[in-house]
Amino acid sequence: MPDTALVPAAAMPLGFRFAATRAGIKASGRLDFACAIADEPVSAAAMFTSNQVVAAPITVGRRHLEQSGGRVRAVLVNAGNANCATGQAGLDACERVCAAAAAHFGCAQETVIPSSTGIIGVLLPAEKLVAALPALDAALGPTAEHFAQFATAIMTTDTRAKTAYASIDVEGKTVRLLGTTKGAGMIQPKLTAGPHATPHAVPHATMLAYLFTDAAIGRENMDRLLHEAVNESFNRISIDGDTSTNDTVLLMASGRSGESIESAEATAAFRAALRDVCISLAKQMVADGEGVEHVVELVVAGAESDEDALKIARSIANSPLVKTAWAGSDPNWGRILAATGYAGVPIDPARISLHFGELEICRDGGLSPSFDETAAHALLQQREFAIRLDLHLGSGRCRFWTCDLTTEYVKINADYST
Amino acid sequence: MPDTALVPAAAMPLGFRFAATRAGIKASGRLDFACAIADEPVSAAAMFTSNQVVAAPITVGRRHLEQSGGRVRAVLVNAGNANCATGQAGLDACERVCAAAAAHFGCAQETVIPSSTGIIGVLLPAEKLVAALPALDAALGPTAEHFAQFATAIMTTDTRAKTAYASIDVEGKTVRLLGTTKGAGMIQPKLTAGPHATPHAVPHATMLAYLFTDAAIGRENMDRLLHEAVNESFNRISIDGDTSTNDTVLLMASGRSGESIESAEATAAFRAALRDVCISLAKQMVADGEGVEHVVELVVAGAESDEDALKIARSIANSPLVKTAWAGSDPNWGRILAATGYAGVPIDPARISLHFGELEICRDGGLSPSFDETAAHALLQQREFAIRLDLHLGSGRCRFWTCDLTTEYVKINADYST
Repeated sequence: MPDTALVPAAAMPLGFRFAATRAGIKASGRLDFACAIADEPVSAAAMFTSNQVVAAPITVGRRHLEQSGGRVRAVLVNAGNANCATGQAGLDACERVCAAAAAHFGCAQETVIPSSTGIIGVLLPAEKLVAALPALDAALGPTAEHFAQFATAIMTTDTRAKTAYASIDVEGKTVRLLGTTKGAGMIQPKLTAGPHATPHAVPHATMLAYLFTDAAIGRENMDRLLHEAVNESFNRISIDGDTSTNDTVLLMASGRSGESIESAEATAAFRAALRDVCISLAKQMVADGEGVEHVVELVVAGAESDEDALKIARSIANSPLVKTAWAGSDPNWGRILAATGYAGVPIDPARISLHFGELEICRDGGLSPSFDETAAHALLQQREFAIRLDLHLGSGRCRFWTCDLTTEYVKINADYST
Repeated sequence: MPDTALVPAAAMPLGFRFAATRAGIKASGRLDFACAIADEPVSAAAMFTSNQVVAAPITVGRRHLEQSGGRVRAVLVNAGNANCATGQAGLDACERVCAAAAAHFGCAQETVIPSSTGIIGVLLPAEKLVAALPALDAALGPTAEHFAQFATAIMTTDTRAKTAYASIDVEGKTVRLLGTTKGAGMIQPKLTAGPHATPHAVPHATMLAYLFTDAAIGRENMDRLLHEAVNESFNRISIDGDTSTNDTVLLMASGRSGESIESAEATAAFRAALRDVCISLAKQMVADGEGVEHVVELVVAGAESDEDALKIARSIANSPLVKTAWAGSDPNWGRILAATGYAGVPIDPARISLHFGELEICRDGGLSPSFDETAAHALLQQREFAIRLDLHLGSGRCRFWTCDLTTEYVKINADYST
């Protein structure tokens, strides 16, 4: 368990316990079954993948949230099996685990939210998870160490656990927000709100994020705040442009701090904290992406709308030619302009300007008079750098995080072991 | 010059001469300046990239075709410099070469169509091309050897020249159709018709295709036939999903066979021949794609519309996870389903079926009862294989050609040499 998963004791929100155990799903024998449980059913908000092909736990999670009216007692996460493309048997397996957990923890089945991540097309071995419930229960605890176990067990190809936390001042009192995420490949989340979307059946690796606060928040406020934060964080990253079938973000609010997020002031403070925690987690995901050697903060400004800016950012972030140029620290700005030109939104190429960090690379659609290839190459050799594209058309903008495409990414994902 | 560029003498259409020379643009010192010239101005149809960022020769070519009413005398192609992101100076350089060629060959400037492919952001050295015109002129000739020189000079990262030809029976007489193409990276052509689209300015490597026939064809018929053929060939391939700024397809009809494509019968025969030649060239491009080890014919059937089928094919063909699985001969069908699910068109995951060659892999959205992993892995070890996805929703379909994503692709495109 990496030390980085350990958050300070003071960061732990009240009203939650965490645990992880080995259910025998990961072939490596590592921690693969995690639980977060609230002392009683609490308010929750969730967002799920917009992929039309979804894994069984997405279908079940949406249904449970609908049935419970957004109340959640426990989250169960298994890694090593995505329970995807497994049809009705997969849905049954998922519900069987939820039912056993509900019986074990003494709560309603619809207050249990399942998550799965890992291999696809293999039926979830529900019996292994059910058999591991007593061990999971015995391991539960409210400490930073318990949370670190949770953060570690949900990993698949991640090389390190990812956590972020904040404390929010509400009328002089402190409430806590704590989060963890996993994901390194099949990462271009496009999460949509709530339990609405049509349930379907099916595939593979994924981003999962869980956020816990001991503030009390009304359901509508919570839905809105989560939606806003996700749209500035998880929905603004791409590792490989592949949107997974299992992506899930869940926020639970225990209210155990005794403080409510109601006033405009408290809402603003919580909004900022939630956004910062989500951005931190999203950036950690990109930085730990499969084979990643360079992390890029991409700002697209001056678009006709924010939606246009986002489309251009995704087009650039997912261009294999742009990503491989970054892998080689090659200041090949023409590839960025080309990806801008095929993004499908109106632009005027003759107005485009481009900066790598503080270096002006392109002005009015052509090479900047101050272009310094050596300096540009040196900048792109850094592990993290910023790129800013300005369309000079309007006030639409977006901030997006992405990465390079390396031979290591190809090796990880081309590896076929029978 | 690879032997494969040599077509049979009988395949040469009447009324054209070809040449190539060394203008000193390619650093390698290889052939880099090619010309195809008709004995007199002939009917032409063209399609150019739909990228909003376009190189100078696209802007100039569109303008010339508009001014000439679709009459073309000469095509000039340089490799090694894309004349992109070069602003007004790039446009001026392009027109300077066209003007010099017009003077040299004694034709109107607007009957000269320029093409450029290669490095971006570097001003086209017009003076080198102008200085090479006499050598180019001296090298002109109508033979298969001359055409092979043309086909070779237009190459950039291509490893071999690409040609295809057909003869069409028109009321007992033979007319000829001959084509060549280049392109290995930045390949996902989305060509649009004619000289209409708004001209713009700017980037990099590209697909270029030139088709020559000695049939006589009316302009409208020619536009329509080219459009249809391109939409079944060049617009149905992707190597890396990056749509270039320089993509060009040009068809010239000399009429020198003395036969006209007018009757329904002749039109049908020409349509089939043009489609076959374009498909052959498009497939050769994919097969010679950067780092390609596997060529995939992808059929998407049963979609609600042909447009939906095409969107799904592009989503699958451009998924890094699907492409890397192919590189590893990994029968990871879940990645294909995931890419289908985020293509942005309506599907019913529970109805999807998937075949690799003749092997049923997936049925009703889940693993096929007849799935044989060893057989599937063996099939994907072949250099070429077919994948068929059926949505079982309607009659929309498309055939698409693509390839795997290998470490070699990354190396080629990450290579930065100062």
